[in-house]
Amino acid sequence: MAVRLAFLGPEGTYTEQAAVDYDPTAERIPFSGIPRVVRAVLNGETDEAIAPIENSMEGMVTFTVDLLIDESGLKIKNEVIVPIHHCLLGDPGTDLESVEVVYSHPQALAQCRDYLTCRLPNAERIASLSTAGAVSDMRSSRYSAVAISSRRAAEIFDANIIERDIEDIRNNRTRFVILASEDHEPTGNDRTSICFDYDLDAPGLLYDTLGEFATREINMIKIESRPNRRNPGRYVFLIDIDGHRETPPVRAALDGMQARTSMFKILGSYPRATPPD
Amino acid sequence: MAVRLAFLGPEGTYTEQAAVDYDPTAERIPFSGIPRVVRAVLNGETDEAIAPIENSMEGMVTFTVDLLIDESGLKIKNEVIVPIHHCLLGDPGTDLESVEVVYSHPQALAQCRDYLTCRLPNAERIASLSTAGAVSDMRSSRYSAVAISSRRAAEIFDANIIERDIEDIRNNRTRFVILASEDHEPTGNDRTSICFDYDLDAPGLLYDTLGEFATREINMIKIESRPNRRNPGRYVFLIDIDGHRETPPVRAALDGMQARTSMFKILGSYPRATPPD
Repeated sequence: MAVRLAFLGPEGTYTEQAAVDYDPTAERIPFSGIPRVVRAVLNGETDEAIAPIENSMEGMVTFTVDLLIDESGLKIKNEVIVPIHHCLLGDPGTDLESVEVVYSHPQALAQCRDYLTCRLPNAERIASLSTAGAVSDMRSSRYSAVAISSRRAAEIFDANIIERDIEDIRNNRTRFVILASEDHEPTGNDRTSICFDYDLDAPGLLYDTLGEFATREINMIKIESRPNRRNPGRYVFLIDIDGHRETPPVRAALDGMQARTSMFKILGSYPRATPPD
Repeated sequence: MAVRLAFLGPEGTYTEQAAVDYDPTAERIPFSGIPRVVRAVLNGETDEAIAPIENSMEGMVTFTVDLLIDESGLKIKNEVIVPIHHCLLGDPGTDLESVEVVYSHPQALAQCRDYLTCRLPNAERIASLSTAGAVSDMRSSRYSAVAISSRRAAEIFDANIIERDIEDIRNNRTRFVILASEDHEPTGNDRTSICFDYDLDAPGLLYDTLGEFATREINMIKIESRPNRRNPGRYVFLIDIDGHRETPPVRAALDGMQARTSMFKILGSYPRATPPD
């Protein structure tokens, strides 16, 4: 039976693209809003959920990160990295100089600012709720209109691609996590995500905690901090390390960290994704 | 003569609110896009610039952070923290049940999701390019419309506030930095921001670097990492600490860090802002 996979709708977004890349055979079920995507797994409506967690341009997806910090019963089971390439969609033979309106999500409009200034100098930029929604906004527009959206949206909504890769900045990519009730067994090339905080606020606490990794030569990939909702004015730290939580040195380091911190949570161990070209 | 202060326009945004809070006597000059705001200081068009750097809901403002990492000749001179309270704007006596459309920036719409579901169940959500732009979108709408925007926008555009503080999540605040050619002299209650990276990728490098603070009992307030644009696949680390770069222990720690890192940059020392209630 196909895995049931919850994703952030509507269809045609970059999240749906990531869902297809992760498991083309899954039964994909759209939900509106990241909290509902996550709840679908907690309720058993779906087996897994996919959610964006980090974009190279926009940084952390704080909605997803905060849900992982707060919710129990949810583990990161896998990750997938998707390159973000924006396409200009519109009628074949469109004269760009005469386009009056360009629709997209404000983030996508911002990521294509130079392109729009040079190639569509006369077009007013109008915001849409999502890059997928921009396609229907374009179609119902009273003006000569184009949309910035994904290749996936062009396929699904049968829209014409005028130009590909119109983003100003290269290497724009989004990391998605697959959430389920359990994480992944060891594969030999794994990553582990954890979060923790402190009740005290003393210099050196974080340093001593990171020593659990350094003394065992465990590589720390990434470290972030989020405002702490349990303790306003303080932070929750999020760390990704190389290795699986079941391997002896990682297990010892995590035990050591738990003893040094207040809240401590293993978000999951999972196979490390290869970044796309 | 009044200080010339560049800010991210249009007028009526939360950035303009922050500019007024920081220096009510400054000559405020709007620019479109954070890169142009920053360039205004580098060019000498203005004396200072104000830019958002961190929101408690949305995380880092990566546009600002990346400009600080890349640009030389730019220092953080001060900071100001502004609580973000959204207002519902519309005609007096509006019957919320009959409202057909609500306009705002997608982030503001997302931050008021529960409120909109309960109080405006029949309103379609339509994206605007900014919370200030939502007010003009509302006024030119063919539908029975309201807008989610700031108190500042209501004042400037002479719009009626139907309800205040409609955001679902409390303690939503944005930290802004003031940028200039030089940072601030010591005041006794200061914060210093730095960034750095490594050419190598060895376990323990970051740990050893943080030891420069820990052994001197210097408090680390915050640590973040950003994808490294000089070295794809690696990260740039951003750290805020207590203290001014000119005080002896901080100066010694920063010298020690410089010797342990590849790129190393002091973004500035500045008086620490008191968070609002």
